[in-house]
Amino acid sequence: MSLLVVGTVGIDVIHTPTGSAHDVLGGSATYFAYVGSFFTDVHLVSVVGEDFPPEYRELLESRRIEMSGVEVVPGGKTFRWRGRYEEDMNRRETLEVHLNVLEGYRPRLREEHRRIPYVFLANSSPVLQLETIEQLDAPELIVADTMDHWIRSEHDELLRLMRRIDGLVLNDQEAQLLADEKNLVKAAHRIQQMGPKFVVLKKGEHGALFYDGDATYVLPAFPTTDVVDPTGAGDSFAGGFMGYLAANRSKITAHALKEAMAYGIVAASFTVEGFSLERLVEVDRAAVEERMERFRQMVRL
Amino acid sequence: MSLLVVGTVGIDVIHTPTGSAHDVLGGSATYFAYVGSFFTDVHLVSVVGEDFPPEYRELLESRRIEMSGVEVVPGGKTFRWRGRYEEDMNRRETLEVHLNVLEGYRPRLREEHRRIPYVFLANSSPVLQLETIEQLDAPELIVADTMDHWIRSEHDELLRLMRRIDGLVLNDQEAQLLADEKNLVKAAHRIQQMGPKFVVLKKGEHGALFYDGDATYVLPAFPTTDVVDPTGAGDSFAGGFMGYLAANRSKITAHALKEAMAYGIVAASFTVEGFSLERLVEVDRAAVEERMERFRQMVRL
Repeated sequence: MSLLVVGTVGIDVIHTPTGSAHDVLGGSATYFAYVGSFFTDVHLVSVVGEDFPPEYRELLESRRIEMSGVEVVPGGKTFRWRGRYEEDMNRRETLEVHLNVLEGYRPRLREEHRRIPYVFLANSSPVLQLETIEQLDAPELIVADTMDHWIRSEHDELLRLMRRIDGLVLNDQEAQLLADEKNLVKAAHRIQQMGPKFVVLKKGEHGALFYDGDATYVLPAFPTTDVVDPTGAGDSFAGGFMGYLAANRSKITAHALKEAMAYGIVAASFTVEGFSLERLVEVDRAAVEERMERFRQMVRL
Repeated sequence: MSLLVVGTVGIDVIHTPTGSAHDVLGGSATYFAYVGSFFTDVHLVSVVGEDFPPEYRELLESRRIEMSGVEVVPGGKTFRWRGRYEEDMNRRETLEVHLNVLEGYRPRLREEHRRIPYVFLANSSPVLQLETIEQLDAPELIVADTMDHWIRSEHDELLRLMRRIDGLVLNDQEAQLLADEKNLVKAAHRIQQMGPKFVVLKKGEHGALFYDGDATYVLPAFPTTDVVDPTGAGDSFAGGFMGYLAANRSKITAHALKEAMAYGIVAASFTVEGFSLERLVEVDRAAVEERMERFRQMVRL
């Protein structure tokens, strides 16, 4: 099955305790699509400016990523983000954001995109995420990401969104905020009761937690000593998670969702080993499977 | 095989966001011994005052815990600790400590205790931990715990200790401090290079990480919605970890250590479900095995 992702494509400047990367390819939909392309065809819907470097477009097009849905705004500038990670790389600070062409952008799906059954709504306003859902013809699995900003500023719209999606993916602190609950297991349970069939909490270096109203699963992160840049880890997780499900075609059971979560964890473990996509471009499906097998062995009891 | 634990037995006052417990049984060696007794005979070496409640002694003696090594100081008062957990129960504040009979206490092992092969040195001064090691006749496995206080104030003695033990168990923040490294995988690697054959990092609600110079394992915590009081979780972890190894008698391979870690995680998951030992006293080995099986299923990929 094909995979549709609607989200941001951008240009990042990233500072970490060990180095910096300037004007590198970033954006939630970028990481998601790149990882998803290890598993299946990915259709990317986003917007960039005329300044978007052709080599970045070529990098994405060299994979199984179809980019007819990436609007180029004449004379426009691409979304830009600059951030700095602290010594504890679970913490980061946004230093600059320039929405540029994202300002006022509303995703309009082309006819062929509306029929794609597996859909990921990367982090954006719940209003836009809802508008995207309205345009879908036959979704089989809709998963959305969100963040603290929307939990605070568009709470009602987010609650509305949660009743329209199959899965919500969010990080641990966001889950605590949304559920008003510090215990992560309880927080996941509460959020699941707000509407989605399942919830996945991303815990960064501590792995991920899944709850579907019945099963609760927790998996650790794949242990890597080589954390260079955590940017895009969450979106890579989502790309591996949904890529596996879309390619797998099997019934979406709790067990399949756990397997998918493991693929997401493995994908994210590659992403953090380099700035931007630099580590991911060295990776292929075989490398993912090899690390997945090591992960299986690691947690086998 | 039998298990020897040298550490504190005390009386606690505990405040959590949902309630308080007054003058309950506590101490690192208490939790360790109680959990260890699910698996094998445990010999407890510690010190209490004349005020130590007889019902607490009876509770421990009702299990496979041999208490001839628990010195009673005539006219002395038992060690007391009062602490408060924040809304985020990973964080706690010590409100009061009264060392009482612990002040100046030096463990003196009786003849029969010196011959016990599996030894846990619960958190205490590295000087006293080293003195205890000197008294052992034929140790097969020595594991020690430590804390930030000793890392800061008795650093050289701790380094000396690390070259005399098989395993060091410590929590994530302590490991970051000791290794001067934020990445937990790297921190575990560095600490292992300081001497011990293996290192186990306890990550609280995020599980535990193991490193032995070769294999790196990470396991999540058993997900419980019912965190009442985290006191003693780390010592319960150690009790399950060493109890399993002592009872198992098999060669201590990396795989056996991973299994042991899982037992430690399961034991700790019971401890946090009640104040003091109140949840543990409801549990037996069958309940541990039942939850262990659920844990196995949960992480199976």
